Parts: sequence; structure tokens; C-alpha cells
Amino acid sequence: MEPQRRPGGRSARVREAVLDATTAELAEHGYQGLTVDAVAQRAGVHKTTVYRRWRSPEGLVADALDLAAGRSWAIPDTGTLTGDLRALTELVRTGFTDPESGPVATAFVTAGLQHPAAAEALRTFYAARHAEAAVIVDRAIARGELGQEVAGTEVVRFAVAPLFHRLFVTHEPVTTAHAHQAADAAITLARAGLLTGEQAP
Amino acid sequence: MEPQRRPGGRSARVREAVLDATTAELAEHGYQGLTVDAVAQRAGVHKTTVYRRWRSPEGLVADALDLAAGRSWAIPDTGTLTGDLRALTELVRTGFTDPESGPVATAFVTAGLQHPAAAEALRTFYAARHAEAAVIVDRAIARGELGQEVAGTEVVRFAVAPLFHRLFVTHEPVTTAHAHQAADAAITLARAGLLTGEQAP
Repeated sequence: MEPQRRPGGRSARVREAVLDATTAELAEHGYQGLTVDAVAQRAGVHKTTVYRRWRSPEGLVADALDLAAGRSWAIPDTGTLTGDLRALTELVRTGFTDPESGPVATAFVTAGLQHPAAAEALRTFYAARHAEAAVIVDRAIARGELGQEVAGTEVVRFAVAPLFHRLFVTHEPVTTAHAHQAADAAITLARAGLLTGEQAP
Repeated sequence: MEPQRRPGGRSARVREAVLDATTAELAEHGYQGLTVDAVAQRAGVHKTTVYRRWRSPEGLVADALDLAAGRSWAIPDTGTLTGDLRALTELVRTGFTDPESGPVATAFVTAGLQHPAAAEALRTFYAARHAEAAVIVDRAIARGELGQEVAGTEVVRFAVAPLFHRLFVTHEPVTTAHAHQAADAAITLARAGLLTGEQAP
């Protein structure tokens, strides 16, 4: 049996190999340890190819985020707003604290603080993630759990923000109880009419 | 007239000079551009002194945060909970978006993502800041604006978290309207009974 080929031809296969190698290097060495040479070697691609197409570690990170933004995410569907949003915040929590995925996710956030291209890629990545997760709110509106005026992406932002704050700013522990508290808080705010759309400047 | 001497003797003066130089270097070059040599030169201190006492850029950042944690912060006192908390979140917003203080504050957060010593220093720094800002909630409880059961540090965390999330994770703009929304949200959560103390694990 032939090994399964990813679709998209040689260029797409090179891209996947290089970006998978980028992710593996980030997991092992973090953003500050990411080099184009190590990524090329791990991907089995000549380093001039990688330099020509991605130029730098931040170029690799930005493209890895673009690729990730295009992949869909398994949004919880438990039948209730509280169940869905608590499962979502718990997914975020475990994604960042898991020994395998955590360092990669942290490396992406770190890169965003150091390079405009990575920051822009993160902005796009999270816009895609929030839009996808907003289906939780759409379903709750359809079930009559929330009013039509509630903005789904705002609920998602407020549900995850307290976790990111503890993880990446204050470096406080984040437990399942914190994930549930943040989800419940976002629902309370949505019902109180505070999450109805983007803020005017 | 003699120039004013900071208290604490020569060792304390060297520390202040070195940490002031650290802050100035962070403002100009960010965390990734911070070197012990440049700090020593700017402070007018021999570089072996700096290496011996602080060892590395993360050592400098950690000590600069320790020094900052000991300095008190001008907590708003407007006479109302909404006034105080909106002023506080606006202070956080302008502190991070100001062209002078913003890069330094961002450099501290970036360092925390890359080095355990900086992360630990940030944890201590924010614990001190949150405890200080909690006086806003104590005053509101005394005025009867909030119940006795509300935990001040939790209100502060929830008031600032949405701003940090936009600034450092999603790289979305943060306006005064966002600062006010986040403050109002924390008050709503406090009144709904969601911010009564640390979460059990």
C-alpha cells in the first residue's frame, strides 16, 4: 500500500512538512530556540528552499498560524449553553497546559509579542477561532437561552480572556474551576446585555 | 546645592541606576534586544558588577519587576465604584498603549513567557498590584455599593483580563470603550455573586 499523500501537489507537501517541523521545533525549544536551519533539517528540505519561502523564524510562525487558522476546530455541542461554553474554556485551558501542545501554543503567543508579522497572523487566527466558536452562542439563541442581540464572538472573547490573563500575564495556576467560572461569567454578561457587539471607539 | 541622593547607600544607588538603565533599554530595544553589556554601559557601571549581581537579561528583568512591585501605584479615587474601576482599566490601557511605557510593559510580559524567573517576578508583581487596586472594592463595600462577600482581587482580575487578552493574545485594538466595558463587566459579575473568592481546584 502506498503511503497516503496529502492533497495539493509538491509545493503543498513541502509546506506541510516545513510547518509540521516548525511546530515540532517550537514544542522542543520554544520560540527563542527556533531556527530556519533546524526546521529545514527536520523537514528534510534544503535550507535555501526554506529561507527563500519563509525568510525567518517569524515567517515560519506566521505561516504555521495561517495554516492552523484554516483547519477547523471541534466545537463542543453538549445541548446547553453552559455545557458548551464550559467545555470550550476547558479545551482552551488543557490546550495551553498540556505538555505537548502547551509549549507550541505559548510559542505562538510569544512570537506575537516580538514580531508584527506573527501578531498579524495571531489576529487572523483568533478571529477565525472566535467566529467558529460563536456557533455555541448561535445555538443558544436558537434554543431561546440567549436573546438575539447577543454577539457570539464577544461571548467567546470574555469566556477565554480570564484564562489567557492568568496563563500569560500573571502566571497564576489555571484549574477546571477557573475555566468554568470564566464560562459562567461570560454567560452572565451576555444575559445582562453587556455583550451585544463590538465597542465603538 | 548637592544633587539629591536616593536613600540606601551605594549598593541601592547602583541597583536603581542599573534597573533604570534596564527599563530604558527595554523601551528602546524590547526584551529580545536587552543585553547586560548595554545596560552596564548606560548605567555607567562596570559590566562585571552587573554580571555578578544580575547574571543575565532575565535576571535584570526579574529585579526590575521586584523593584516596581514595591513602588505604590496611584489608585483612582473618584467616589463611585464605576468611576474608580473605569479609571483603573483606562490606566492599564494607556499604560500599555503609551509609546513610552508601552514597550517596557510589553517587554516584561514577553520576558515572563520565556524565562521562569521573569514569570515568577511577574506573578509577584501582579499579586502586589491587584492587592493594592482591591482598595477600590473595599471602598465600594464600605459605601454599600457591593456586598461584603465580594473578593477585591477577583474584581480587579476580571476588570483587566479582557484588555490584556486583546493586547497580548489576539492583537485587537483596545479603546476607552473597551476599558469601560471591561470595568462594567467586572462590576456586573461582582453583583451577580461570581467573584467571591479564589476558585477551588
